[in-house]
Amino acid sequence: MNTTTLLQPVVLSGGSGTRLWPLSREKYPKQLLSLMGEDSLLQATLRRVEGIAGADLAEPVVVCNEEYRFVIAEQLRLMGQSGRIVLEPTGRNTAPALTLAALAASNSGADPVLLVMPADHVITDVAAFQAAVSKGAALAAAGAVVTFGITPDAPETGYGYIQRGQALADGSGAFALARFVEKPDLATAQGFLDDGNYSWNGGIFAFRAGAFMAELAAHRPDIAAAVREAVALGREDGNAFYPDAASFGRIKGESVDYAVMEKTARAAVVPVAMGWSDIGNWHALRDARPADGEGNRIHGPAELVDCRNVLVETDGPRVSVIGLEDIAIVINGDEVLVTTMAGAQKVGKLTGAVKQ
Amino acid sequence: MNTTTLLQPVVLSGGSGTRLWPLSREKYPKQLLSLMGEDSLLQATLRRVEGIAGADLAEPVVVCNEEYRFVIAEQLRLMGQSGRIVLEPTGRNTAPALTLAALAASNSGADPVLLVMPADHVITDVAAFQAAVSKGAALAAAGAVVTFGITPDAPETGYGYIQRGQALADGSGAFALARFVEKPDLATAQGFLDDGNYSWNGGIFAFRAGAFMAELAAHRPDIAAAVREAVALGREDGNAFYPDAASFGRIKGESVDYAVMEKTARAAVVPVAMGWSDIGNWHALRDARPADGEGNRIHGPAELVDCRNVLVETDGPRVSVIGLEDIAIVINGDEVLVTTMAGAQKVGKLTGAVKQ
Repeated sequence: MNTTTLLQPVVLSGGSGTRLWPLSREKYPKQLLSLMGEDSLLQATLRRVEGIAGADLAEPVVVCNEEYRFVIAEQLRLMGQSGRIVLEPTGRNTAPALTLAALAASNSGADPVLLVMPADHVITDVAAFQAAVSKGAALAAAGAVVTFGITPDAPETGYGYIQRGQALADGSGAFALARFVEKPDLATAQGFLDDGNYSWNGGIFAFRAGAFMAELAAHRPDIAAAVREAVALGREDGNAFYPDAASFGRIKGESVDYAVMEKTARAAVVPVAMGWSDIGNWHALRDARPADGEGNRIHGPAELVDCRNVLVETDGPRVSVIGLEDIAIVINGDEVLVTTMAGAQKVGKLTGAVKQ
Repeated sequence: MNTTTLLQPVVLSGGSGTRLWPLSREKYPKQLLSLMGEDSLLQATLRRVEGIAGADLAEPVVVCNEEYRFVIAEQLRLMGQSGRIVLEPTGRNTAPALTLAALAASNSGADPVLLVMPADHVITDVAAFQAAVSKGAALAAAGAVVTFGITPDAPETGYGYIQRGQALADGSGAFALARFVEKPDLATAQGFLDDGNYSWNGGIFAFRAGAFMAELAAHRPDIAAAVREAVALGREDGNAFYPDAASFGRIKGESVDYAVMEKTARAAVVPVAMGWSDIGNWHALRDARPADGEGNRIHGPAELVDCRNVLVETDGPRVSVIGLEDIAIVINGDEVLVTTMAGAQKVGKLTGAVKQ
């Protein structure tokens, strides 16, 4: 960025709290937990934007379900931030959520660059993140609708992918967008990795509110109109905003990937390698946490004998483990989970996770 | 037995409660737990002698540590038995314990055949047990000091072994005793299995009180004298007997195997195959319990997905397990144990088991 840009952080705090069950629960989804240190993942998401070169940061906008209003307000307060909290009456996927954020950020007549970030991701290389955001924000300030494509280092089948097109002619190092791909099978994922033109889809975006609304109005006028109605009929309550539930509920949900990004001529992909993970299951959390000499990760009282790459997470009871490798053991209240890393993707289907 | 013999069941209830930690604890060693059904192992030990052909059963004698007097009295009461409880002031191994039992059983001038059984073993083929006891009791009634040699079906390194000598000339199917062998290494255990003349040492004996005391007096007069003194200076309290602690404490502890069995010319070995296990660790308990179609054994609320041969034992919390094989998961109060079957022998060394 040549001049200072007003950057509006937008945090999308969705997530159902089943994939890291029994630690994450419906009442406390993973973005509100301190999984990687003292900050919750949501707090770390906001902390990560502090100090981006060439950006003035606006107070953040958090889009979340009504149920989490006060716990999120408290987490913002503990960081010394106020911010605004936009409360979705019901989940309608990312296009309506981003529309709520764009309208909230521009209702004073400003047209800031929104930096949209899911609340529940881990990024270990913050410098790389900030450099990519600087580049993306400059493109967005000039009118682009930017998505960040995360350089894959494994044939992950748990992530969606972004295929990029030609390099942009502006010399920015960004690319045109070819298409989004849903979670592939392993062979397809390996093909993407070998191809070199595919990135993981981290769901991180940068765009001017006005540019986004214009593209949405062009390609999904129904969503644009319905969200405008929900906002017009909504109500403020302190730092929270309640869109009208009836208007919002009538929206046919759609991801911003398909509603806008694949259709707009302004799309740009900024590649970035930044130690990113969506912490989608216990395997991913194990890998994201720092390990001891045997690869074990221990939170809480535990004794491990002849163990390697074991994750232990206990809220009280002592956990004694002998002879195991590549498993996760989670004690939370009246629930105990023991799973192989390979089995971690099935956690959300367990009776305990489903019947919350 | 040609005529009815008075058979005096003697149950040795020792054991420190570490090998099945955290379920077995110092305050509740495994013989007092209901590991295999409604009965505790001690109750099952007494239940197992009911109905032995040719035997009139005396009320049992239980030899145990003072700490367990009332819980054992209650377990006897629940079975409708009174029995006598001989309370060792301190553990001095099996020779003094059996001497206490022999003196208790003969103090009225009778000379019954004692059937001595550890309280914490599992025997699945009760008919085979009773047939062997019938044979052993007949030999004991005629003056022999009998030990039962359990036919091994695996090269177990966790058991002691008995090497037998020549078949006895009386046609009883019993053998002379060659020697006792402490827990062997695997190669040695395999050699014993191949040899065919070795049995597991289950610590089960049959002898007349008089014969035992005569042999003890001949080979370990120090133990005989010290226990007689402890009994002479002891006191009755209801159905319990407290030997004198000072006299008993001065005894140099010794197993009956070495104090008497290896030295006496009256020793006889009765072989028996009866589905025996000493439940010496979680692996052994897993194998002793009935399994579901996937080999899993579950006590308490649990959901197992893609698991085989997993033991779950929980006193309340639900246990959810994915993708594991041949492990034990035990939840008890504020302790959680997760171990491979191979690692189960190390449980007693865990901090939680040691620092009780």
